[in-house]
Amino acid sequence: MPTIFTGRVVAGPRDERAALLVFDPGAVVVEAGRVAWIGPREALPSTWAREAFARIDAPLVTAGLVDAHTHAAWVGSRHEEYVMKLRGEGYEAIAARGGGIAASMRAVEQASVESIADALAARLARMASLGVTTVEVKSGYGLRAALERRQLEAIARVSARADRPRVVATYLALHALPPEARGSDAARAAHVAAAIALVAELARAGLASFVDAYVDRNAFSVDEARPLGDAARAAGLGVRLHIGQFADVGGAELAAALGAASGDHLESTSRAGLDAMARANVAATLLPLASFVLGQAPPDVAAMRAAGLRLVVASDANPGTAPSESLPLAMAFAARLYGLSTAEVILGATRNAALALGLPDRGQLVVGAPADLVAWDLPHEEALLQPWGVSRARLVLRDGAPIHEASRVDA
Amino acid sequence: MPTIFTGRVVAGPRDERAALLVFDPGAVVVEAGRVAWIGPREALPSTWAREAFARIDAPLVTAGLVDAHTHAAWVGSRHEEYVMKLRGEGYEAIAARGGGIAASMRAVEQASVESIADALAARLARMASLGVTTVEVKSGYGLRAALERRQLEAIARVSARADRPRVVATYLALHALPPEARGSDAARAAHVAAAIALVAELARAGLASFVDAYVDRNAFSVDEARPLGDAARAAGLGVRLHIGQFADVGGAELAAALGAASGDHLESTSRAGLDAMARANVAATLLPLASFVLGQAPPDVAAMRAAGLRLVVASDANPGTAPSESLPLAMAFAARLYGLSTAEVILGATRNAALALGLPDRGQLVVGAPADLVAWDLPHEEALLQPWGVSRARLVLRDGAPIHEASRVDA
Repeated sequence: MPTIFTGRVVAGPRDERAALLVFDPGAVVVEAGRVAWIGPREALPSTWAREAFARIDAPLVTAGLVDAHTHAAWVGSRHEEYVMKLRGEGYEAIAARGGGIAASMRAVEQASVESIADALAARLARMASLGVTTVEVKSGYGLRAALERRQLEAIARVSARADRPRVVATYLALHALPPEARGSDAARAAHVAAAIALVAELARAGLASFVDAYVDRNAFSVDEARPLGDAARAAGLGVRLHIGQFADVGGAELAAALGAASGDHLESTSRAGLDAMARANVAATLLPLASFVLGQAPPDVAAMRAAGLRLVVASDANPGTAPSESLPLAMAFAARLYGLSTAEVILGATRNAALALGLPDRGQLVVGAPADLVAWDLPHEEALLQPWGVSRARLVLRDGAPIHEASRVDA
Repeated sequence: MPTIFTGRVVAGPRDERAALLVFDPGAVVVEAGRVAWIGPREALPSTWAREAFARIDAPLVTAGLVDAHTHAAWVGSRHEEYVMKLRGEGYEAIAARGGGIAASMRAVEQASVESIADALAARLARMASLGVTTVEVKSGYGLRAALERRQLEAIARVSARADRPRVVATYLALHALPPEARGSDAARAAHVAAAIALVAELARAGLASFVDAYVDRNAFSVDEARPLGDAARAAGLGVRLHIGQFADVGGAELAAALGAASGDHLESTSRAGLDAMARANVAATLLPLASFVLGQAPPDVAAMRAAGLRLVVASDANPGTAPSESLPLAMAFAARLYGLSTAEVILGATRNAALALGLPDRGQLVVGAPADLVAWDLPHEEALLQPWGVSRARLVLRDGAPIHEASRVDA
């Protein structure tokens, strides 16, 4: 039986100039998990109006949100580091003392596949309650091959659940050095080589769609990350890179050379780097929760627009620099702190995010697309940018089936 | 049957120096709606251990959060103003064009008591889901006597519900001028006089516990607000004031002279004003969501500490400058943007907030106190300060009865 949603409907991009296609009043017909019709309500064909159907009136209907950068498969908590950062201690200084990523590595080391999967499943349910229907989830807290695989197996387990957002798995191969790789250049090189060697095996096992590396001054170099990218391409996997978070070490140019799907962070990336990304059609993924927590200045969004980059907004959900589970909060920050327009924010968290994850049929409501859809308890897409700090999603569908429904709180 | 909560228990203030009393592992016994015992788990008297009881293990247990400054009885949405503010238009400029508070007045004018109460009840349910058990709710979107009363009647209706947070009603008598009061000094004076004349009537009807005024350069003067405060005291009501949000026009000294429970905002308040507040034991209520939305610099927290002021953190939930329903998000901002310590934030959103609302038995877990309590899905009170953007409360009790329980998302 088809379901008809009526209300203000944000369908997706209207054109290439970052404008939204809106029908108000609009209608969306969902049937067999897909969008069967969308348009102005008064144009709804009588064939749909005649059929038996369920009808849901909502103030606002949009495509499901797509969170294109998360480390959501973490376990444990790093609240004590958060307080250190508030007191002015640097992220890189905390990491140098064995905190940061290494602390999350110790937590993964002590966790089973089941307990990592349980933590991720609970987190994805909370994300679904916020209107998120697709989540990219990175490994990167294993650091050693066996533990990276453990994290990716946990991700695969949750990925199989239809009652959670769709998961896109990324092997974050070069994130930080495990203790045993810190002693010498040789040990470091061995770690990088082992991380690269794992790519083909993970691809064969179907455990990752993308490979990622953290390219920055106190992380990994362009020369270390390039062969990783080559290995990913050779294995048929996509590439995404953390670049320019603290310093520009050439990550943007590498992303362009590798044909990466996205370059993420970009607070310190040069204009030349941004231009290189734009020429290679690499998306620019903005992570304003992380820069808020770190007290950083915004990236150069004006230069990104001038370069013609596709902008993506993501949560960066992670236990250190973005201890959050809310893409809507990242959207509010992108508007307030980075100056993105309403359309840039909405497209950055739907259509552009889906494209950057290699999911061309997601992130917009068009006929034939899978029905990933949110009915909001908000009257207008501009209200979506406000820092609610709580779920305003009434009903969230993935492939036409509910993955979140708000309790009737006004009963 | 008593219920025993075990876990890390934050009981309340340890002393006058803004430190927390924590039992880890601790236990809290709830019986007949009150805290029957609290302390280290190993000291739990065998009399409790012997009885039949329900036992709930939670990583973290705190007193229920107390939101001491909200305008939560609004209807409608002002998302288009939010986007104007993002584009750099000033709040006062928007207000001068008939936007801002006057826009919310028009929405109240067109709403019934029922529809205002429904909007508030839904909002309070979402606040409860965030761990909030007491909410101060102001009128102030009626502006005219009949509409102010309509808003307060809606607040009273929701206040009667045991399945929502406790409500403390405030008559925000001087918030903005209705259109008919803008023409002349005489019309303005008549509005102020009518607002003051309403105080005794509302007090007799039991519709408000506090009276409030917005004292600022483009709002109301100290001379206009003083007789309002006098009327409140004469009617047996408490006073709280919006002061120093944009300019210091002497609001802090007025708050001190009136013996106000709290002075709120304070971004522009002088040190002399803060000292006057401290001498008169007026609490300092910080509203970081509003200053975030308005792009303001933080208030002078160091001067507040030096003055010995009691700090309160509140959401300021309102449709214009803080379109949010999240006290936890305000807490995260107080830590990140205002530099408050963990203990300052927690006490500011529990014990100090309760004291500023005239509720000496709330905001801490002590034997005999009503059991307003939250079991969190977080391991430590430091993790409460992180910008989650989603509910992390597992179970929320008001007077010992659940007003929110998370669905078992990890099932």
